[in-house]
Amino acid sequence: MSTSIDLTQLIQNTINGKIKPIGSLGKIESLAAQIASVQITEPSHNKLHLQNPSLLIFAGDHGIAKHNVSIAPSDVTSLMVNCFINSQAAINSFIKDTDWQLHVIDCGIQRELPAQTAIINARLGNCCGDISEVPALSESQFKQAKINAEQIITNLNTNIIGFGEMGIANTSPASAIFAKLFGLSANDIVGVGTGINNDQLDIKRSLIDKAISRIDSNEPKNILRELGSFEIATMAFAMLESFKQNKLIIVDGFIVTAAAAIALAIEPQIKSHLIYAHVSNESAHKQVLARLNSEPLLDLSLRLGEGTGAALALPLIQAAVNFYNHMASFDDLGITL
Amino acid sequence: MSTSIDLTQLIQNTINGKIKPIGSLGKIESLAAQIASVQITEPSHNKLHLQNPSLLIFAGDHGIAKHNVSIAPSDVTSLMVNCFINSQAAINSFIKDTDWQLHVIDCGIQRELPAQTAIINARLGNCCGDISEVPALSESQFKQAKINAEQIITNLNTNIIGFGEMGIANTSPASAIFAKLFGLSANDIVGVGTGINNDQLDIKRSLIDKAISRIDSNEPKNILRELGSFEIATMAFAMLESFKQNKLIIVDGFIVTAAAAIALAIEPQIKSHLIYAHVSNESAHKQVLARLNSEPLLDLSLRLGEGTGAALALPLIQAAVNFYNHMASFDDLGITL
Repeated sequence: MSTSIDLTQLIQNTINGKIKPIGSLGKIESLAAQIASVQITEPSHNKLHLQNPSLLIFAGDHGIAKHNVSIAPSDVTSLMVNCFINSQAAINSFIKDTDWQLHVIDCGIQRELPAQTAIINARLGNCCGDISEVPALSESQFKQAKINAEQIITNLNTNIIGFGEMGIANTSPASAIFAKLFGLSANDIVGVGTGINNDQLDIKRSLIDKAISRIDSNEPKNILRELGSFEIATMAFAMLESFKQNKLIIVDGFIVTAAAAIALAIEPQIKSHLIYAHVSNESAHKQVLARLNSEPLLDLSLRLGEGTGAALALPLIQAAVNFYNHMASFDDLGITL
Repeated sequence: MSTSIDLTQLIQNTINGKIKPIGSLGKIESLAAQIASVQITEPSHNKLHLQNPSLLIFAGDHGIAKHNVSIAPSDVTSLMVNCFINSQAAINSFIKDTDWQLHVIDCGIQRELPAQTAIINARLGNCCGDISEVPALSESQFKQAKINAEQIITNLNTNIIGFGEMGIANTSPASAIFAKLFGLSANDIVGVGTGINNDQLDIKRSLIDKAISRIDSNEPKNILRELGSFEIATMAFAMLESFKQNKLIIVDGFIVTAAAAIALAIEPQIKSHLIYAHVSNESAHKQVLARLNSEPLLDLSLRLGEGTGAALALPLIQAAVNFYNHMASFDDLGITL
């Protein structure tokens, strides 16, 4: 306990000792303090390090998509996964010339791509259940999601993981999760996703209301299995495993935040490891982030997913690390305050 | 004229043709459109490029500092300039391992550093006039500031310039410029800078009121010479020259925005070339940015200067360029909408 307090003090002294007015680097300072609180385990190792930053895109298809709750059909999930592998998507352009290592994970998409090394196979089926009618995952799929997630995280040689996703219609399960977790109605939480019209929005809302009224228990794992999806469940377990392995977790947008909200409900201590990359343009994201007491780094009106926001946050995280490690202190300059 | 319209359409078609919902990359799309509008001069060259991004720190000292309107004495300006050269400051840590080329410009600091290649000599004196009493720059200093600025920009082999500054007390001239340009009182615009107390804030406000009541004309060059400073005047001219040479201009925080506001008042067309990096923690910055109809990229509660915000914006600008150049289009994938 006293060591922990000493380390907290050491970290704050390190930050406050830099040659600048205290607090004048705002969120970069709090980000550095957060990373330090995760990485510094003894006073003699007072340096931060980002090892092979790894961006994971978890892809899956959705039973609820058949109700026309998205601007695109489910086939587009597989199409986009193919684009990720062939460096054609937005996320590929965002990470070009950066340190990000991209990993694409098939958690269960309708059109399976040919087996290849460029994709991690973590398939739980072709498509998760239609949450307005049935559980998203069966009990055995749910167990397998946890096993897959632990294996994926264990196989990565990194200490910082960006979480991204792809799945046509996956703002629906994300909205359902938030509604159930926070006791809200679909009206409060359901938005236009990537851009549906008002008729679709009405359908989406009534389906989410139907989904959340289907289950009684507020137990987070139950919410995840019933109202989640292949990729959201795998992400939530992957976050919990990342926390166990003391890795930093970068949360992308609305859907990844749903996985984070479940992970937080299961293991509140994971909060120390979560870095919220951005507030997206999905209407309820801001509200949800506030409920989680999070402070997202960016606000760029993104609403695409794919980990695009997480990717753009890495340079800020790198700046925080370099600030902590390399900026001179008053001590270094021989200045006594 | 028709060519210009065609290019605008070409740019928007290029962006809208990318394989994603229209508008789903928010500010990254508008940033790409802005960069394209500056760089694409004929349809056959529909690619963007950042050439040797150059971060300039303009340093100067201030007559008004003798009234104790800052948390630190003027000597700290020279101290920090020395830190920039020796890679010890916040800005150095932020640009570590990035593409930024740093150039430190002495526009007139009290303690001149030994002549060396690492600093650009653009000195206009040891310290600008105390704006509460006299013009910041004499007529001849003002002419020389323009000559210096044109030479600095011409000598750079770059098409994108980040503007930063260092100068103890320089939120005072920046506040005076905004107050005079926008017809506001010191109460509306003067803030705590890097962190002065309430007594200092009262003194600062009364000095700024005295300064703005000293001059009648609202002519922007007159405001700049009377209420500016060595580094703000040099920056404003450097921005105007950058615009002439068709270079992108990244605006850092409150003080650099004052230079940009003057440049805009002199040459409204420069707006197309200005990228506002961030909204700082200085209380009036948000208000001022709104008056300039600008959309800053970042909001990280920074209040340090040195170009720290501009530095952190570069990865977003690079992402916008890579998005424009490299992300596949529906055409590339053989998809007809």
